Amino acid sequence: MTPYQAIELFAKTLGNLEKWMDKAEAYAKDRGFEVDVLAQSRLAPDQYSLVKQVQAVCDQAKFAAAYLSGGKAPSHPDTETTFAELRARIQKVEEYLATVSEKDFAGADDRKVAPAWLGGRWFRGSDYLVEMAIPNFFFHASMAYAILRHNGVNLGKMDYIGGITTHEK
Amino acid sequence: MTPYQAIELFAKTLGNLEKWMDKAEAYAKDRGFEVDVLAQSRLAPDQYSLVKQVQAVCDQAKFAAAYLSGGKAPSHPDTETTFAELRARIQKVEEYLATVSEKDFAGADDRKVAPAWLGGRWFRGSDYLVEMAIPNFFFHASMAYAILRHNGVNLGKMDYIGGITTHEK
Repeated sequence: MTPYQAIELFAKTLGNLEKWMDKAEAYAKDRGFEVDVLAQSRLAPDQYSLVKQVQAVCDQAKFAAAYLSGGKAPSHPDTETTFAELRARIQKVEEYLATVSEKDFAGADDRKVAPAWLGGRWFRGSDYLVEMAIPNFFFHASMAYAILRHNGVNLGKMDYIGGITTHEK
Repeated sequence: MTPYQAIELFAKTLGNLEKWMDKAEAYAKDRGFEVDVLAQSRLAPDQYSLVKQVQAVCDQAKFAAAYLSGGKAPSHPDTETTFAELRARIQKVEEYLATVSEKDFAGADDRKVAPAWLGGRWFRGSDYLVEMAIPNFFFHASMAYAILRHNGVNLGKMDYIGGITTHEK
């Protein structure tokens, strides 16, 4: 999986997340509750709420694209509280991901990736992708899924995976 | 990320999972409950229990290694019910992963991957890795983590990520 394929997979999964949110909205409507109750739901009192899981999955995708392409990530302050605002955040990240192309990732494996939280230390691009970006992106995507699933939204594994590319015999 | 790097990352994450189970066992001991209660825990009544999440994460790693290296996966019947049995399952998979080496993955991108559940259809190796093996592996790892976290086990993000490879300025 090249860095660009990883970004494509992140973009696809953000699209899947929007469909989980569609199902959550339909469920809320059917049961007669306000969907934004789910935005504040969490699996443990000291774990991120759905809002923060969605912000985090967006950031994992955005920063992976920026760090590995040598670009600058757009700033997205964590101000969302509603499904509508989260959808807008996801869409901004999808639009940003669409601005990077395969050729921008030439040399990505050897880029120095130095997120502020590393306090001056840095990853090789390939280590950052393998050790941080991929596991972290899918962690936050899975937690968003899990919070919805735990609250009764009717999600199944293929909602998580999305479309697949298979061939006939 | 090459197919072999993916298998290494899966092996590392299975090692992390064993440490989450260590924390779960310490928590159960401290609170005076039987840890195997957690083995049957789940986030939703129609979602996999911890036992099945661990079986699934093991299978994702094992089958990715077998399909992409052209090898044959060892058979591991889903008979586990306890933490001790789950640990043995994880260790068997870790041992199997250690038998494949980088050179076994030559040509992995173009291998035909035809799991029985596809009913005769097949994936290109590279599509299987990107669209199924990686997202699915991290899904089940994250769900195992989430079930423990939801039940009070004191896990944090770096328990999920494990060791990282960074460099000084």
